[in-house]
Amino acid sequence: MSPKRERIDPMGTKRKGILFVISAPSGAGKTTLIGRVVRVLQGLSLSVSCTTRRPRPGEVHGKDYFFISMEEFQDMADKKMLLEWAMVHGMLYGTPASNLKVLDEGDDLVLDIDTQGATLIKRQIPDGVFIYIMPPSLKTLEDRLRARGGDSEEAVAIRLRNAEKELDHAGWYDYIIINKDIDEASKALQSIIIAERSRAHRVLAS
Amino acid sequence: MSPKRERIDPMGTKRKGILFVISAPSGAGKTTLIGRVVRVLQGLSLSVSCTTRRPRPGEVHGKDYFFISMEEFQDMADKKMLLEWAMVHGMLYGTPASNLKVLDEGDDLVLDIDTQGATLIKRQIPDGVFIYIMPPSLKTLEDRLRARGGDSEEAVAIRLRNAEKELDHAGWYDYIIINKDIDEASKALQSIIIAERSRAHRVLAS
Repeated sequence: MSPKRERIDPMGTKRKGILFVISAPSGAGKTTLIGRVVRVLQGLSLSVSCTTRRPRPGEVHGKDYFFISMEEFQDMADKKMLLEWAMVHGMLYGTPASNLKVLDEGDDLVLDIDTQGATLIKRQIPDGVFIYIMPPSLKTLEDRLRARGGDSEEAVAIRLRNAEKELDHAGWYDYIIINKDIDEASKALQSIIIAERSRAHRVLAS
Repeated sequence: MSPKRERIDPMGTKRKGILFVISAPSGAGKTTLIGRVVRVLQGLSLSVSCTTRRPRPGEVHGKDYFFISMEEFQDMADKKMLLEWAMVHGMLYGTPASNLKVLDEGDDLVLDIDTQGATLIKRQIPDGVFIYIMPPSLKTLEDRLRARGGDSEEAVAIRLRNAEKELDHAGWYDYIIINKDIDEASKALQSIIIAERSRAHRVLAS
């Protein structure tokens, strides 16, 4: 998480942060890539989602997700405190609307979200930048899912079927990163974020 | 200049090179930035233009420009061997159409060209990526032009007036890099090139 600060754009007006929405089938290496880029780049933080699924080993509440109960989730949805929410693999995931506040402070934000959620975000924030991370092949994806552990054979099979469906959505995104090599994919993701900060309409916006 | 090679894209089809068109008022640091990025990045070469202007100290024929006579220039124009040409500061500059061949070989190409030429290229190659480099201010530009030397007071005045006019075109470009710091501007330019290689329509193109 980068330190908060006032940021002035080159035209002398206050900069509006950019929303980067990143999707991938599970096992494509998305979490590792996002972790790296948020550590390396200044002025970029990660939106922490709420979920009703249970933490995997090593996951930390408030850092990886806000792990909340079905009742708490329902309550947030009722109070319109979620920008979007969706059911994935039978569990609920949602984005707290308050996470977007950093954009007004001039910081960029990364949303790690499935394709279904991404389309909902796109409707609300069309100026967002949509990035899709792909495994080099479904075979590689399967190997990675097994290596990660924590999923049953049945869960792996469900994830693979969903991954196949997700791949159809890739063309809808602004960018596609094929994660063959983690260093190269990481460089591509960083480059996209730095490049988008130089987009003419953003540099000239006042 | 990077070594020629077959390049296969991640979808298994042959990659088509990307054309990067870069403009700037003289003195914005464009030549230095382009020199760096072409040295650092693989699969990227620089299009060498023809000009009727005389070489500045240190400029090399065939590397910086093809320095040719008015008659030779006229002959190339007549034979449709120039993709575009234009008069800038009273001298002729043109892009040999044959320079684009590297794109078919899967390599990316940088065109260093004024805004007038860039609009002509845009009409012919709409999929090109258009980048504008700006000096942080006209004052800085003036200082740089004088520090570079080789221009008379009158020439500096003409370049400054042209620069002011050129700045109006900046919004038409895809990206704007404000060259306040050469390292940061260099990183932005590299990032744009790497990011554009991950554009969804390019990754999915077959």
